[in-house]
Amino acid sequence: MKFGVVGYKGRIGKLILDVFTTDNHVPVLLVDKDEIIEKDSPDVIVDFSTPDALKITKTLCEKHQSKLVIGTTALNKEHFKLLENLSKNFAIVQSFNFSIGINILLDVLEKINNIFKDWDCEITEIHHSKKKDKPSGTAILLKEAINRDLEIHSLRLGGIPGDHSILFSNEGELIEIKHRAISRKVFAIGALKAAKFILKKQNGFFTFKDIIKEELQ
Amino acid sequence: MKFGVVGYKGRIGKLILDVFTTDNHVPVLLVDKDEIIEKDSPDVIVDFSTPDALKITKTLCEKHQSKLVIGTTALNKEHFKLLENLSKNFAIVQSFNFSIGINILLDVLEKINNIFKDWDCEITEIHHSKKKDKPSGTAILLKEAINRDLEIHSLRLGGIPGDHSILFSNEGELIEIKHRAISRKVFAIGALKAAKFILKKQNGFFTFKDIIKEELQ
Amino acid sequence: MKFGVVGYKGRIGKLILDVFTTDNHVPVLLVDKDEIIEKDSPDVIVDFSTPDALKITKTLCEKHQSKLVIGTTALNKEHFKLLENLSKNFAIVQSFNFSIGINILLDVLEKINNIFKDWDCEITEIHHSKKKDKPSGTAILLKEAINRDLEIHSLRLGGIPGDHSILFSNEGELIEIKHRAISRKVFAIGALKAAKFILKKQNGFFTFKDIIKEELQ
Amino acid sequence: MKFGVVGYKGRIGKLILDVFTTDNHVPVLLVDKDEIIEKDSPDVIVDFSTPDALKITKTLCEKHQSKLVIGTTALNKEHFKLLENLSKNFAIVQSFNFSIGINILLDVLEKINNIFKDWDCEITEIHHSKKKDKPSGTAILLKEAINRDLEIHSLRLGGIPGDHSILFSNEGELIEIKHRAISRKVFAIGALKAAKFILKKQNGFFTFKDIIKEELQ
Repeated sequence: MKFGVVGYKGRIGKLILDVFTTDNHVPVLLVDKDEIIEKDSPDVIVDFSTPDALKITKTLCEKHQSKLVIGTTALNKEHFKLLENLSKNFAIVQSFNFSIGINILLDVLEKINNIFKDWDCEITEIHHSKKKDKPSGTAILLKEAINRDLEIHSLRLGGIPGDHSILFSNEGELIEIKHRAISRKVFAIGALKAAKFILKKQNGFFTFKDIIKEELQ
Repeated sequence: MKFGVVGYKGRIGKLILDVFTTDNHVPVLLVDKDEIIEKDSPDVIVDFSTPDALKITKTLCEKHQSKLVIGTTALNKEHFKLLENLSKNFAIVQSFNFSIGINILLDVLEKINNIFKDWDCEITEIHHSKKKDKPSGTAILLKEAINRDLEIHSLRLGGIPGDHSILFSNEGELIEIKHRAISRKVFAIGALKAAKFILKKQNGFFTFKDIIKEELQ
Repeated sequence: MKFGVVGYKGRIGKLILDVFTTDNHVPVLLVDKDEIIEKDSPDVIVDFSTPDALKITKTLCEKHQSKLVIGTTALNKEHFKLLENLSKNFAIVQSFNFSIGINILLDVLEKINNIFKDWDCEITEIHHSKKKDKPSGTAILLKEAINRDLEIHSLRLGGIPGDHSILFSNEGELIEIKHRAISRKVFAIGALKAAKFILKKQNGFFTFKDIIKEELQ
Repeated sequence: MKFGVVGYKGRIGKLILDVFTTDNHVPVLLVDKDEIIEKDSPDVIVDFSTPDALKITKTLCEKHQSKLVIGTTALNKEHFKLLENLSKNFAIVQSFNFSIGINILLDVLEKINNIFKDWDCEITEIHHSKKKDKPSGTAILLKEAINRDLEIHSLRLGGIPGDHSILFSNEGELIEIKHRAISRKVFAIGALKAAKFILKKQNGFFTFKDIIKEELQ
C-alpha cells in the first residue's frame, strides 16, 4: 500500500516508517512540524503524534481521500467529535493501545473469565523503574476484562519495557498468562495490522478490538 | 459406584484408589502385572497404566459389562481402533490429559490459533525424570489445538508433576501461556469426574472435552 | 545406615521413612506417642515431631550412641540448651528449614548481593490460599540474605505449596532466581542429606548452612 | 578512542556504532561485505560479525596495530588458534556473551555446580527467529560452567533479544535461574566496556570474566 506518516521524525514515527517499508509498503506522505512532503496520495495515513496535529491530519485525509490509523494519546471529546465526523466518509481505526497481544488477551479474558470463577486470580506487572504510575493502565484494563475484585502487584525494576502476568489457580492447577512487550516496535506492528484492516473498509469508526474480533471469527 | 483399577500398584493407580475411595466408591476389581483380584463387577473400570494392558482391560470390560475411563498415554492407531470397537457397546472416556485447566486451554487455543498465525510458536513441557515418553501426550494435544507444525521441547527433571508452556512471539511481543499441575492428584480427580460423567451414558466414545462442554452448558 | 524416626506416624515422619528406605537405609527404631519399637541401635535418629518429644529423643540418643537430625519447629531456649549439651558428645544437625534449595539460595545471595548493589531488586512469593501469614518466613530470610530494603509481593493462590522469586534488573538485563517447592518431600530429602553429613562427624552442633558450606568447598 | 567496526551494517554493528559514538569515540574504520572504509588507524577494532570475517579482521589488526574486541559466535578451534597467535602481539577480549549478568551467572554456577551434582539439570534459551546457530554460544558457556553433560533446548521466536534459563530439580524442589537481555544494546555496552579495558593492556588473550574480576577487586 501507499502510506503517510504524521510525526515521521518522532520515536514511534520512525518505527512506523521502518515496519511499514520492511513489509514493502511505500511512504508517499511525510509530515512533521512545519514540514509536509507529498509525493502521492496515500491509501492510509498513520498518526501517532500529538493532539495538535489532528486538524492537519484531517485536512490531508480529505485532500487525498485517505483512510486513517490514529494512535495519538490524550485525545479529548472535541478530538473524538472531529474523528466521528471524519469517519462518516473515511474508515478510521482509533485506539490508545496498539499492542496486538494485549488486545487479544483482553478479548480472551472477557470470554473465559466465567470459566475461572471458582479459581483464585491475581495480577503482577513489571515496568522500568522510571514509570511512576502504579498499577499500569494495562493492568487496570486486564482487571476490568476479568471483571473481578483482585490484587495487582506492581514491580518497578531496571529497564523492563512492560511485563503483565495473570495467574489463575485452584487446589490442583496453576494457569499463568504472561505478556511481554519486547520493544516499542509493538505499536508500529499494531499500526500496520490496523492499516491492512482498514484498507478493506469504506468508512466507519473502528477500534483495535474490532480488528481482533474480525480475526477471531 | 463400584469401580475397578488397572495398574492399581502404580503411582497414578494408587492416587485413583485414594481419590475414589475417599469419595465413598468401592474398589471391586484390582489389576496389575500378573495379578487380577475380582470381587464383583465394577460399573466403571479406570485404566491409567500402559498400552500393553489394553487387551486385558478390554476383556474385563466385556466380561463385567463395565464402562471405561482410559488415561493411558502413548496409544497408537491400533489401540484407538480397539477402543472405537469397544465403544459401540460400552461408554468410554479417553483423554491424554484429565486436568480441567489443560482442557480449558485446548478449547481457548482452538478458538484463538487463527489470530496468532503470523506469530512464531513453540511448546515446552517439563515432567519428572521417570516419565519415558517424549513429548507428553498433553503437548501433542496442545500442538493439535494450535493446528500448526511446531517444535515441542521436552525437559525431564526431578519430580515435576507436569508443566506445559505455549509461547507465541512476533517482532515486538511475547505471550506465554503456562499450565502447572500442582500434584498428580489432579489426574485422579479428573478421572473421578469422568467416571461420574460416563455412568449416565450407554455407549459411545467421549473425551474430556465433552465433559467440559456439558459442565459449561 | 541404620536410622530411627521419632514421630514416624506423622505426615513428615512417613515421608522420612519413605525417602530413607528408598535410599536403602534401614529403620531400626520407630517412635511415636506411647510407642517405641527398638530393633537395633540406629546410627542417626531423625526427629521432626514436637518439642515435647525432645527429652525422649535425647534419652534414646544417649542409650544407642546415635547422632541426631532435628527439624522440630517452635523450639525454645531451654530446648536449645538441651541440644547444646547433647552436642558435646553427639553430632547434631538442627535447622528450621531443611529445603536444600532454599539454603543454597540463602548462601549464594549472601555471597553475591554485593555484586548486584546497583541493580534494582524485588521479591515475589506465592503460597496456597490457606496460608495466613504475609510475607512468608522464607521470603523474610531471603530479604535478610540480600541485606537491603526491598519490596516483597505476596500472592495467595489455590494449592501452591511455595514459590519464591528474587528479581534483579538494571537498564539492560533481568536476572530472576526462582524456587519452587514441589511437595513436602523436600524436607525429608533434606533430612537424609543431613543424616549423611552427620555420619562423618564425631560431635558438635551444626545447622543446614554448615552442610551447604562443606559441599561448596 | 578511535575505533573500527567489522560488520558495521549488521544489526549489532549498528548498535556498536551508536553506543561508541554516543560515548564520544570516533569511528575510523568501517568494514562490511566487499567494503572497507579506512580513515585512520583505530585503537581498537570491534568484530561481532561472522567467523568468515576473522581473517580480514586479523589482517586489519596487524596493519593498524589495533587491539581487538571479538564477540562473533560459532568460532571453531581453528579460529581460536588464529586468535591466540594474534594475542601474542595484540591484546584481545573474546567472549560469546558481553553481558554483565551472564558473566556473573557463569561465575556463580562454577562455584555452586558441585552442590547440585545429584539434581537434574537442563538449559533452555530463546532467541529471535533470525538467529541461525543452535544452541547459542552463551548456552554453551553456561553448560561448561555447570560442567556436566546436559540437554540444551533452543527456541527461535519473534524478536526475543536473548533469554537463558538454567533449571535444577530433584524429587522435591525446582530452582530456575533466568537471564533476560532486555535489548541487544546490552552487548554493545559490554563491547564498549571491553574496549576500555583492553586499551590498558599490551597483549594477551582475555575474556569478559577477566573484566568482571578486575571490576570487583
